[in-house]
Amino acid sequence: MPTEYRDRLKRLRRQLAESDANALVVTHLLNIYYLSGFSGSAAILLVELDRSTLFTDGRYAVQAPQQVKPAGVRVTIPSASILKAAGEHLGSSRTARGGARRAAYDPAHLTVAQHQELRRSAGSRISWITGAGWVEKLRALKSPAEIIKMRAAARLISTVFEQVVPFIRPGATELDLAAEVDYRMRKLGASGPSFETIVASGPRAALPHANPTTKRLRRNELVVLDAGAILADYCSDMTRTVFIGRAPNRVKSWYRAVLEAQAAAAAALAVGVESSAPDAAARRVLDTAGLGKYFVHSTGHGLGLEVHEAPRLAKDQKAKLQAGMVVTIEPGIYVEGVGGIRIEDDVAIYAGRTEVLTTATRELLEL
Amino acid sequence: MPTEYRDRLKRLRRQLAESDANALVVTHLLNIYYLSGFSGSAAILLVELDRSTLFTDGRYAVQAPQQVKPAGVRVTIPSASILKAAGEHLGSSRTARGGARRAAYDPAHLTVAQHQELRRSAGSRISWITGAGWVEKLRALKSPAEIIKMRAAARLISTVFEQVVPFIRPGATELDLAAEVDYRMRKLGASGPSFETIVASGPRAALPHANPTTKRLRRNELVVLDAGAILADYCSDMTRTVFIGRAPNRVKSWYRAVLEAQAAAAAALAVGVESSAPDAAARRVLDTAGLGKYFVHSTGHGLGLEVHEAPRLAKDQKAKLQAGMVVTIEPGIYVEGVGGIRIEDDVAIYAGRTEVLTTATRELLEL
Repeated sequence: MPTEYRDRLKRLRRQLAESDANALVVTHLLNIYYLSGFSGSAAILLVELDRSTLFTDGRYAVQAPQQVKPAGVRVTIPSASILKAAGEHLGSSRTARGGARRAAYDPAHLTVAQHQELRRSAGSRISWITGAGWVEKLRALKSPAEIIKMRAAARLISTVFEQVVPFIRPGATELDLAAEVDYRMRKLGASGPSFETIVASGPRAALPHANPTTKRLRRNELVVLDAGAILADYCSDMTRTVFIGRAPNRVKSWYRAVLEAQAAAAAALAVGVESSAPDAAARRVLDTAGLGKYFVHSTGHGLGLEVHEAPRLAKDQKAKLQAGMVVTIEPGIYVEGVGGIRIEDDVAIYAGRTEVLTTATRELLEL
Repeated sequence: MPTEYRDRLKRLRRQLAESDANALVVTHLLNIYYLSGFSGSAAILLVELDRSTLFTDGRYAVQAPQQVKPAGVRVTIPSASILKAAGEHLGSSRTARGGARRAAYDPAHLTVAQHQELRRSAGSRISWITGAGWVEKLRALKSPAEIIKMRAAARLISTVFEQVVPFIRPGATELDLAAEVDYRMRKLGASGPSFETIVASGPRAALPHANPTTKRLRRNELVVLDAGAILADYCSDMTRTVFIGRAPNRVKSWYRAVLEAQAAAAAALAVGVESSAPDAAARRVLDTAGLGKYFVHSTGHGLGLEVHEAPRLAKDQKAKLQAGMVVTIEPGIYVEGVGGIRIEDDVAIYAGRTEVLTTATRELLEL
């Protein structure tokens, strides 16, 4: 990992140099963690061409230097605002080349209030440019060490699903089932869920983003269970849909169509392919089955330190898929008043092949 | 509740009128929930002098109108960006008074990227002013209906603590204990923890913000358990510190000092008092006991829909406490290499009295 942090900072500096900036102010905590290893809840990382400095507060006086030393990052603990300190550092230091400084920041990760404080404290010698998504672009390509962690997180959530199947029975509430899922992921070593666990049963399964309620599960209902775990800082994200009782033929045929759509999307994943291709493949299958109008969201998204990262697998996405990307594949159909079916797996993309990281069965379980 | 939303919007409009603005763009989701009842994950609320409009996306086409109707808010579902739609709405509509428009926004709740999109779509006819913390100021004063919910959330976390005491024993890991806490709060009806549950044992208890690890609890260790639950949307936040085994006299005297500091802070809570007074009271007790240097954070914070809200109970805070505020009182001491002790309760402030909402015992438990 030490080498990994240094390598990431090196690649980021290449981006800096290309954009003719002397510094990048990194404000998103997970980007800071990715670049430096610091895991605290308040920090600014200033990446300059010849050094990197982490600004944090007194709570992390012991932890921060330990965590960022392997990355070659220095720690500064100002007595007042870390944003102000980072700005003043920028405003007062000279580049190796001398001359005026150009600093970059990501406008998606800085509030207007923070930006004002940063500009004010840096002063007028600093000119500002937009460095949107630079770190996210690096993060989208996982290293072999990251893939190992993501595989473990994906297997963990798969195991949790297998463990909670016996709890999916009439009378249990959606909240009971969600509590069981979250409890078991923690017992298996997860630090917590990567998003609020979704349990949606019966007609509620027709809502793609249903939070669990006190509604009780009943016979002859579809149950959508969408959950992810954070293990060693990396996220998984998996959905399975089961039927309580014997599924009617209509439900079985819907399920088969969604499963086929998912397989088609997964088969379309390959290095060099446009990010819209898996979505188009899934949509083709559901359109043919006459279910296209019920597929109301996009097919998938990258995941890693966050549960939603680059790339997006959706209609309008032109970016090419690359080796090292890990994405979800999650087509679904939602029929108002009846229910919904979604099947989601996590897939790693390598040169010439892919690997499905989640391992729970995709067959329709009739419980 | 319907009346409550309308009353909140009315008080907000009074603030708008005072600042001579025609509109406030509300972007923080919990502020939107507070003002309108909408609980989805993407929205902009535009509060104008004569109407309010919620901009959200297709996922909430059914839910949004149902939720915001009692508040008298209209729903718009644009086909593209909700920020763009809100900006265009502002830019194209006329005020009742006619003439140019002044719109307010909170710079702490809008990223630079969002602000750019908003300004661009609103056009040059709109002038912008800062409306920082307007909604938070309303939220700091809880209504009787809100206090009822906060009491329930505080009692719930107190019950969880009582239920997990038997699990605080040598051999269990910190993560095991955190999983137990989170599981039990869900079983008691909480939608989830109000922040990541903290379990810190032995020397790790000296870190004020320690996330639980795979470290096992051992005999003769202090264990700090800091947890909160979200129940019916409102947060609780409680800390208890226990000793595994018979506590040595040094630990007992530390514990007594922290408990006394907490009582002093609670006694200092009253309408009209400066927010720094409870902090000063706690600090005085710990200074007298020679432990002042180990008290490295402030004494408390408001809580409500969020676990950290106005007011802050800290050294430099001049704002006066008001009836309806709910705050934590949580002095603690942290001795590197040895451990830490923190005791935290939630307290509601009324005219002439206060109410401690959390009910778990504050006596030192030796387990």
